[in-house]
Amino acid sequence: MTAAFAKGASPANQAMKGVLSPVLTPFHADLSVEKDLLTAQCRWLLNCNVGLAVFGTNSEGNSLSAAERADLVQHLVGQGIDASRMMPGTGGCALPDVVSLTQSCLRAGVKDVLVLPPFYYKGVSDEGLFAFFSEVIERVGDSALRMYLYHIPPVSQVGLSLDLIDRLLTRYGSVIAGAKDSGGQWDNTAAMIERFSARGFAVFAGSENFLMRTLRAGGAGCISATANVNPAAIASLCSNWQVPDADAQQQRLDTVRAVFAALPMIAAMKTAVAHASGKADWKRLRPPLVSLNAAQEAQLLAAMKDAGFAMSQPKGSA
Amino acid sequence: MTAAFAKGASPANQAMKGVLSPVLTPFHADLSVEKDLLTAQCRWLLNCNVGLAVFGTNSEGNSLSAAERADLVQHLVGQGIDASRMMPGTGGCALPDVVSLTQSCLRAGVKDVLVLPPFYYKGVSDEGLFAFFSEVIERVGDSALRMYLYHIPPVSQVGLSLDLIDRLLTRYGSVIAGAKDSGGQWDNTAAMIERFSARGFAVFAGSENFLMRTLRAGGAGCISATANVNPAAIASLCSNWQVPDADAQQQRLDTVRAVFAALPMIAAMKTAVAHASGKADWKRLRPPLVSLNAAQEAQLLAAMKDAGFAMSQPKGSA
Repeated sequence: MTAAFAKGASPANQAMKGVLSPVLTPFHADLSVEKDLLTAQCRWLLNCNVGLAVFGTNSEGNSLSAAERADLVQHLVGQGIDASRMMPGTGGCALPDVVSLTQSCLRAGVKDVLVLPPFYYKGVSDEGLFAFFSEVIERVGDSALRMYLYHIPPVSQVGLSLDLIDRLLTRYGSVIAGAKDSGGQWDNTAAMIERFSARGFAVFAGSENFLMRTLRAGGAGCISATANVNPAAIASLCSNWQVPDADAQQQRLDTVRAVFAALPMIAAMKTAVAHASGKADWKRLRPPLVSLNAAQEAQLLAAMKDAGFAMSQPKGSA
Repeated sequence: MTAAFAKGASPANQAMKGVLSPVLTPFHADLSVEKDLLTAQCRWLLNCNVGLAVFGTNSEGNSLSAAERADLVQHLVGQGIDASRMMPGTGGCALPDVVSLTQSCLRAGVKDVLVLPPFYYKGVSDEGLFAFFSEVIERVGDSALRMYLYHIPPVSQVGLSLDLIDRLLTRYGSVIAGAKDSGGQWDNTAAMIERFSARGFAVFAGSENFLMRTLRAGGAGCISATANVNPAAIASLCSNWQVPDADAQQQRLDTVRAVFAALPMIAAMKTAVAHASGKADWKRLRPPLVSLNAAQEAQLLAAMKDAGFAMSQPKGSA
């Protein structure tokens, strides 16, 4: 099997690029996923030219069981959501969960997956992380797989070193399709791009704050939470990053992001979507995360107004 | 349902005490759990008067899926392992997994469970953690449940404050049966005992290093990894802690623990069990954890010899 993985990228095996969003996950009062709202949010993002990194950190992806995630992928594809624009998070701490969920994605026609390192144990070795990703790839056993490595040490507390990425790329070729770097350290993102992009490895910044720097350095784009609320502007700059006013556009994106980053961000984005769509259910989060309180909600709405930002999502569309 | 939880502890609802061990989990070459070896290790620990905190941190519990853990509980009980001596780890990041696994335990006759806070998101609020534990208890919906809260911030990076414990105890009474404190800060363990033990809350130290201090302060005992390799001595001191040479016995326990703590501890304990039992499969870990290398194994065996420590497990018993 390893031999099959080691060949170069075929045209059918190109890495993704552009802007993706860890799609926010709406919940019913009983905390089950509100599939219709999720599907509508996915449709709207695709219409804004934003891809679907469902089950990311800002999707509360790890608050969903592997079985729930597998069911949602199948549901979304069944609703006509383009599988080639999806990059579900399939990471977890238990190897069997990661393998079975990744296999479910492939069965549904979704080849691109974003995979966290196992994040319970801290201070683990590159040898152990290599063994984990290697077991996932070998057990999934499908050379169509395109795995993106998810580096987010501020949350996972377990990072992915450049040497680990190199070793995985050398062993598994284009199956190791790229990475999302949410470490917030530009030097690391730049080093990923410099060291691996010539091998077809797509580097996504973890926030649109780094969008212009990533594109100018030769990266693939960004996978950004705030693309849930400001998708069109982020996607437009990514598609037209060589325009003369690109830096001014970047500044504008940063201003909008700062409005959400000043508050618990997932709850703030959900509140904004709730207001834009008229669907109050969007305000709900799964524990341990909590909704904005009334003061925070007022602060958010005031800050959006001060920033001259209103969500472009048509009222009621989601 | 809440009303039923709020009543006091009944005789059938007493908290556990004594020594428990996060039972090491043996794996076949394909990384599936080697059930026969696990069952044998459980029997041996029970014979040494050590209870079974299966699926703890040192059991690689979070490297097992919820479905695997549910299956193993059923298997162990089916093999005649005493359900009243088990305290499985049922924690995880996704509420549905924690609920279904805890329900599976209760169906198998296992009422005591050790529950981590959800550990993916960091810096979460007490409000969010209360909501998480509350949802688990309410959804499980069985007042026979005895939940032990697992405080292990060095690994989970999400701790359980005294105020959170107070709030849970006030709301759910004896369903909140106790805690394991693996924070390594004696002051916190002492505060847990002082504040909550009068309410029937059983406080277990997370290591036998704190055994005498815990018992003298009125705590319930310890749940310790190294009880996998040194069970009889730890359990004996716990049962006879008022003997004149208790402090000397405590020092001896500390010396033995230090042998294992000087190396990656889970791998070191598994290596010791492999040698004592003659079953090399015990050396295997699930990624991201790795086995000792040859130099580490030699270091371990030399340190055990220097400490005059040999596992008492009869060769071949596991």
